[in-house]
Amino acid sequence: MDSTKASGETAINMPESKSTKAKAVVYATTKATPLQQGGGWKRGVAIFDFILRICALVAALAATTTMGTTDQTLPFFTQFFQFQASYDDLPTFTFFVVANAIASGYLVLSLPFSIVGIVRPQAVGIKLLLLILDTVLVAFTTAAAASAAAIVYLAHNGNSNTNWLAICQQFNDFCQRVSGAVVASFIAAVIFIFLVVLSAVALRRH
Amino acid sequence: MDSTKASGETAINMPESKSTKAKAVVYATTKATPLQQGGGWKRGVAIFDFILRICALVAALAATTTMGTTDQTLPFFTQFFQFQASYDDLPTFTFFVVANAIASGYLVLSLPFSIVGIVRPQAVGIKLLLLILDTVLVAFTTAAAASAAAIVYLAHNGNSNTNWLAICQQFNDFCQRVSGAVVASFIAAVIFIFLVVLSAVALRRH
Repeated sequence: MDSTKASGETAINMPESKSTKAKAVVYATTKATPLQQGGGWKRGVAIFDFILRICALVAALAATTTMGTTDQTLPFFTQFFQFQASYDDLPTFTFFVVANAIASGYLVLSLPFSIVGIVRPQAVGIKLLLLILDTVLVAFTTAAAASAAAIVYLAHNGNSNTNWLAICQQFNDFCQRVSGAVVASFIAAVIFIFLVVLSAVALRRH
Repeated sequence: MDSTKASGETAINMPESKSTKAKAVVYATTKATPLQQGGGWKRGVAIFDFILRICALVAALAATTTMGTTDQTLPFFTQFFQFQASYDDLPTFTFFVVANAIASGYLVLSLPFSIVGIVRPQAVGIKLLLLILDTVLVAFTTAAAASAAAIVYLAHNGNSNTNWLAICQQFNDFCQRVSGAVVASFIAAVIFIFLVVLSAVALRRH
């Protein structure tokens, strides 16, 4: 205050330097805040990605085990036929079990990469790799679920045009368990789609 | 040049202003070059995206029309049965036609957005929207193709455990056309996967 009173020049200079300092502080904060926000935002997405992966793993494992352990033997038999239904009677159901087992294995293997995404939210390469593999798994899981659904629909309703009879009237318990497995697999496929969308949104904000 | 010779002060000031101009030019070029490179690279990806969309459109339209126009009537008939096979005898094939028609419609509607991607390679929002919709279409097209494939496999081979007889021994022409439609739909699904990967790679380089 004394120096500003002493000369006009210093009085002009002092507020100038103050304002530049103030500006510098403002710039520093505005530059730092979006980076911190972006990091925190990406970390949240990465944690959500990890949780979704565990949910998908549960769904895929449930689909695999439900289909794999389904086995129904009817309490009566004839000379020609034993009336037993199991998943390996139909090739589509075998593919279903294999595909969902592969999806489960992939999900277990992808969990460490998802954790890396939480620790280092700025790592782009891992996100891109997971996005590409997740997209392939979307197709894989959907193919398993849809083909099994087509067969289950046929087993429930039959088809008069092709003379394929509904077998679910006999094997009711078998059909219900298989339907549950198909629903679980569709849930896994939907979660995979969400994982792809999450990764894409996280990539955009890079 | 005359002013620099006239006074020392101007002589000192002139080179300074020249060097800052030169620096400014250097900064401008180094700033412009990666942008232009990135823009050109992104434009190439966008053009490839457009070509892939047209390929997928051709595949989806081929699948729809092949399945939709397939109709075989056998040259003999009995009192009870007319021996005619068409896609709407089986609900799975109807779903196949509807799903591939929707995929074709989506691809036609997405072409203008793909052109916007070529004109403005830096537009991120459109790429993200197309990526999300493409991922959903991956699941959609794969579901149609896989369910139809399961039924076609059954029609070709039958299944002794469920007493479902192979109908392709009678309807050979029908089965071959349907198999072709399924292959076309799988090709469309694979192209959709490539479109998702392309969009993801283009998003990463933002």
